[in-house]
Amino acid sequence: EILAELTAFFTPKHLAGKRVVITAGPTFEPIDPVRGITNLSSGKMGYALAQAAQQAGANVVLVSGPTALAEPYGVQRMDVQTAQQMLAAVQAHIADTDVFIAVAAVADWRVAEPSAQKIKKQAGSLPSLAFVENPDILATIAALPNPPYCVGFAAESENLAEYAQAKRAKKNIPLIVGNVAQTALGADDNELLLCDAAGTQRLPRASKQVLAQQLIEAISQRLG
Amino acid sequence: EILAELTAFFTPKHLAGKRVVITAGPTFEPIDPVRGITNLSSGKMGYALAQAAQQAGANVVLVSGPTALAEPYGVQRMDVQTAQQMLAAVQAHIADTDVFIAVAAVADWRVAEPSAQKIKKQAGSLPSLAFVENPDILATIAALPNPPYCVGFAAESENLAEYAQAKRAKKNIPLIVGNVAQTALGADDNELLLCDAAGTQRLPRASKQVLAQQLIEAISQRLG
Repeated sequence: EILAELTAFFTPKHLAGKRVVITAGPTFEPIDPVRGITNLSSGKMGYALAQAAQQAGANVVLVSGPTALAEPYGVQRMDVQTAQQMLAAVQAHIADTDVFIAVAAVADWRVAEPSAQKIKKQAGSLPSLAFVENPDILATIAALPNPPYCVGFAAESENLAEYAQAKRAKKNIPLIVGNVAQTALGADDNELLLCDAAGTQRLPRASKQVLAQQLIEAISQRLG
Repeated sequence: EILAELTAFFTPKHLAGKRVVITAGPTFEPIDPVRGITNLSSGKMGYALAQAAQQAGANVVLVSGPTALAEPYGVQRMDVQTAQQMLAAVQAHIADTDVFIAVAAVADWRVAEPSAQKIKKQAGSLPSLAFVENPDILATIAALPNPPYCVGFAAESENLAEYAQAKRAKKNIPLIVGNVAQTALGADDNELLLCDAAGTQRLPRASKQVLAQQLIEAISQRLG
């Protein structure tokens, strides 16, 4: 905490008085009471952004899927499990928000009918799962009458810039951040590609903490 | 480490010179490079057992699915992701093993054909997943010509003793440990029901550390 306070003291207050909502981590979509579908997001990038935004003076709400990370200092954290719960938590906190950063790796689909009892293994019998589409949290928030400045993330293995710009247009948001590193998931460092209407800007390989500070500064510049 | 050394110093060496292999945590069965099927196991009980066995003097190999837990002091840890990888790691270390404790919550099924590329979300298109059965790690080890003393775990919401005894018979192993607490998954304490040929024995609610020590002692008594 002392380190966090000190770092905050020396960080320019680019986001003083701003309200920021950030999603982070994976979602967990139940199959039955013990099994579910998830993804490999560690939550590190989202948590680093929450800390960097707080240190830049913002009032930060972090809506987090299941992770093993400690709560960032001075940040209000809401724990959720599923995409639907994540959307509800974001909607509950989005009023008067200036910036919404959707870092969470939200499951695109959930199981149509999760089982209330643990599915028993039976010889020769395999389960079959039907899926339904989850809500698109970022597009939902971007479609609000007076949306906050919306930032999305893209993690594609091929044609990152092209894919990121297409995703930006489709979701109708001003800024998409691409994970350049194939190995970004779970790692402690990363490399980012900022894609907005002006084109692309590369943030070279660095720790997620350093990249988070640079990205928060880039966002604050775009707020004008 | 000092605490671990001290605790070990004062722990009776019930397993001195014994070799113990323990599985812990969930498995993660890929759907594509970023998504997969997992379960809610935290790995805490398996890690506590690995530490307790080491403190009781055993040479311990811990084969662990993805967890956020620190490596137990003095234990050899092998990290794996899928059930097939877990079986291979156990088989690679099972020679001359005295005790095998299968605590991991192994996925019963894996996706038949995981996608090599991230499955893209397309409007109106839902994925369909076909499954194949995973190997039964505990039954495979119990069926070896000279098997180690095999211990399994059962986590059923209903009829625990009955289910545990049926599982013990089916897998042909001497001891099954039932998680009595419905809320054991992820929690720091638990309550156990030991089921063997002599009947059932209850270990009342306690921390997973204390229960691990009691269970290691109960196993060492059964080794004779």
